Amino acid sequence: MTTMTHALPVRRQDDFAAWYQAVIDQADLAEESGVRGCMIIRPWGYGIWQRLQERLDRRIRETGHQNCYFPLFIPLSFIAKEAEHVEGFAKEMAVVTHHRLKMIDGRLQPDPEAKLEEPLVVRPTSETVIGAAFQRWIRSYRDLPLLLNQWANVVRWEMRPRLFLRTAEFLWQEGHTAHASREEAMEETLRMLEVYRWFSEDVLAMPVVAGEKPPHERFPGADSTYSIEAMMQDGKALQAGTAHYLGTNFARAQNIRYQSERGDLEFAHTTSWGVSTRLVGGVVMTHGDDDGLRLPPLIAPSQIVIVPILREVPEDAGVLEFCASLAAELGALNALGEPVRVEFDKRPLRAVDKRWAWLKRGAPIVCEIGARDVAAQNVSFFRRDQARDESGRMRTQRLERSQFVATVTDMLAQMQTGLFREARERTMANIRADITTLDELRAYFAEPKDGKAFRGWVRVPWSRPEGAQLQAVEAELKAMKVSIRNAPMEQADVGSKRCIFTGEPAREEVLVARAY
Amino acid sequence: MTTMTHALPVRRQDDFAAWYQAVIDQADLAEESGVRGCMIIRPWGYGIWQRLQERLDRRIRETGHQNCYFPLFIPLSFIAKEAEHVEGFAKEMAVVTHHRLKMIDGRLQPDPEAKLEEPLVVRPTSETVIGAAFQRWIRSYRDLPLLLNQWANVVRWEMRPRLFLRTAEFLWQEGHTAHASREEAMEETLRMLEVYRWFSEDVLAMPVVAGEKPPHERFPGADSTYSIEAMMQDGKALQAGTAHYLGTNFARAQNIRYQSERGDLEFAHTTSWGVSTRLVGGVVMTHGDDDGLRLPPLIAPSQIVIVPILREVPEDAGVLEFCASLAAELGALNALGEPVRVEFDKRPLRAVDKRWAWLKRGAPIVCEIGARDVAAQNVSFFRRDQARDESGRMRTQRLERSQFVATVTDMLAQMQTGLFREARERTMANIRADITTLDELRAYFAEPKDGKAFRGWVRVPWSRPEGAQLQAVEAELKAMKVSIRNAPMEQADVGSKRCIFTGEPAREEVLVARAY
Repeated sequence: MTTMTHALPVRRQDDFAAWYQAVIDQADLAEESGVRGCMIIRPWGYGIWQRLQERLDRRIRETGHQNCYFPLFIPLSFIAKEAEHVEGFAKEMAVVTHHRLKMIDGRLQPDPEAKLEEPLVVRPTSETVIGAAFQRWIRSYRDLPLLLNQWANVVRWEMRPRLFLRTAEFLWQEGHTAHASREEAMEETLRMLEVYRWFSEDVLAMPVVAGEKPPHERFPGADSTYSIEAMMQDGKALQAGTAHYLGTNFARAQNIRYQSERGDLEFAHTTSWGVSTRLVGGVVMTHGDDDGLRLPPLIAPSQIVIVPILREVPEDAGVLEFCASLAAELGALNALGEPVRVEFDKRPLRAVDKRWAWLKRGAPIVCEIGARDVAAQNVSFFRRDQARDESGRMRTQRLERSQFVATVTDMLAQMQTGLFREARERTMANIRADITTLDELRAYFAEPKDGKAFRGWVRVPWSRPEGAQLQAVEAELKAMKVSIRNAPMEQADVGSKRCIFTGEPAREEVLVARAY
Repeated sequence: MTTMTHALPVRRQDDFAAWYQAVIDQADLAEESGVRGCMIIRPWGYGIWQRLQERLDRRIRETGHQNCYFPLFIPLSFIAKEAEHVEGFAKEMAVVTHHRLKMIDGRLQPDPEAKLEEPLVVRPTSETVIGAAFQRWIRSYRDLPLLLNQWANVVRWEMRPRLFLRTAEFLWQEGHTAHASREEAMEETLRMLEVYRWFSEDVLAMPVVAGEKPPHERFPGADSTYSIEAMMQDGKALQAGTAHYLGTNFARAQNIRYQSERGDLEFAHTTSWGVSTRLVGGVVMTHGDDDGLRLPPLIAPSQIVIVPILREVPEDAGVLEFCASLAAELGALNALGEPVRVEFDKRPLRAVDKRWAWLKRGAPIVCEIGARDVAAQNVSFFRRDQARDESGRMRTQRLERSQFVATVTDMLAQMQTGLFREARERTMANIRADITTLDELRAYFAEPKDGKAFRGWVRVPWSRPEGAQLQAVEAELKAMKVSIRNAPMEQADVGSKRCIFTGEPAREEVLVARAY
């Protein structure tokens, strides 16, 4: 048994970015594909995504939305319709210009004779193509609200890609809805923001602050944008989901109108909202430790892994039999409202190598069963959230089999809430509200010489500047390498406080942070 | 109540192609998107696909495969590696050449300064990009078999697109596996062929013939290709799924090697297999009738739809209450191994319009509840498989509520097997095995003057010609506008029969048919 105190080659405190990369790699989550900015999501990483997807999909349908599927390709002319949308996205799209390859001079290349009349864009998001369908489908107020969602891949060219966090291609869901009034559309926007908050906190165990983005951080073409922001273990913010009230901007650009009850022709109010595979990166940076990933049981592809300890002796048969019956017994249990997911790991590898692999992958509970356990009808196991004792040694626990079976579902439930509590305490402890001047703010975010100091978030009064005044704030923020994440939904009375940037009377508070 | 004997504007016997289009349209399955060859899958159509996906995904995982996700884009150099593969696919791919748009002369267009050094192909299938990962991941025989699957969108440029059947973009699953030996890879190929047969017949209620494709119909780069073929109601064959044994062709092209137990470096044997959204088209053409779609209960997004008949009178409240409690009671039942899917249709539309809509969409059971039903505690309903009596009138049935609840799950089970039985009988009755000469075959497939005659399949002896002899057969088939679908797995002894094309001793029988 090794006594090294961390399974990864690098610790969070030494180099957070390298640590992140190490977790992704050693937990078998994803890898570079050789295609610029595109990742391969490996089975364990995809298993997490599939768990997320199932859970969120159920909730999206329960809130009245229907799934559908729109084309990957968007004609250039669709994109060109909404001016701000073009401005926001035109810089980073993959463009299809040919529909055939040809061998020319011994080299396979786009066939000049198969050039498309109108280039097609690989969707960076689907407002324009879905809006065109809304225009056809919506006739009367009876057709509203129209509540759609799709699970899809999208592409945004990225200059500095990073696995899960910023990839050229990523997987996501995008909701698109149309409503008769501003009120209903805003209600929908905030409902889905709340679904995302619930999903992040109750399923991913990742605490977030929900709030509204300042004008310069809005989605291109939106009237207002809301986000959930999560604090990573290096203090940076991760935008984990967004919901947009698009006003009638897309409706005007695409002529989405309906006949009202009074017979007037009115523009529909639309919304859109999405979360992506980026969430997997958020889970890593929220729950990971120096041994690798720790997975909240609700999203672990396998919640309990059973590893037989075999010694090429006759007793091995009894060990395998014990493991198989234990797997069946555990698989019949329910935890956190669904059948327990058990994996019996029979791969032809050494038990000790499996231990480290499952530790790094973050399986919640790993049972290691040897001949002595079988003889005594015990289960030896470790919990991923209590994997080491104070001296850093692996902490293996042992229970009578019947007792283990009777308590294991409680353990899983405890881990789910325990991981959330731990992350929430860390987040709450690192949001400062005592910085009152711009100089203090600059000093707080100033780079230390070693570049390593932890920087949390700062909550400051904000006067909602606009125009040139807002541009000046943007420049100031940029110089500090921070951004305004959002104005949290939960606001205390700002009283007579003044905006830290403009000196004018504050209207609310906003969160300032470094961000991914 | 109308007495028209079919709800669609066109009947199968009058114009099958127009009828197909009418079902797709009026059952709200899909529509053209305005992007050439790409379809919008509407919520009811996507609901069917999602049901298929859940069922098949479970089976794919139960057979030991893991889901993962590979990039949408494939560098040209990857595609160029396997020569036959290039030849087979190079003619129909979408090619990305730029990664940015720019406003030039007032027109949005690909930015000449953002031209990719190496063009990227939008995946038509993923053997090459997954093979490159296999090359990195496989080191030793202990890493084998490697059993992966992905759910993804793929693009193949189509000159004559048709909703679900041939679209430029489609959704599918593609399995990719690597094995130590030919035997294991062949076993895998046939295992997945059998999974597809089971899935088509037991889930989609669509009878198929599983068999091996002749050499000229193989997947580009495969050593052998197997398919399942289903007979549509116009007698044509639909290739509904394929499984390929790729030999060591891709392994050689991509250097996928492993160290064997004896220490030698060997090429892996690979397979791939897939089914797509094309299956939805198959379901339409297998089960649809002149009233629209008929859905096997296992894949119906809603198995029972409850429509309240409201008259703007005080009794309406009782009707709505009755419907809500009935929906709750039915939703607590299990049918065909899973909770019954019930939809209470409260949309502000006339009950009679809802009736026709659900009839055309193919919901298995539609309950229509009025005040008289409530007073008598009855349920009025129609079964989609018994929607009309012999004179063509809609056949509404009525049962006491308790009796309806007690028997409805049996009805759903009966419909599932009944739809399969009906389709199987039609298929079996239309495979001719009595055609013994090429002239007879030509006469059978000759176009009648009105172009409408039903043409089934013909089972003929086959000598497995190769080379020039095979090319002559191909030309003959082409002239008849038919193709060899496969050599069925179930073969009787061919005895002294001679090949209908070559006159040489037969080695097996093959199916000849018109096809989609």
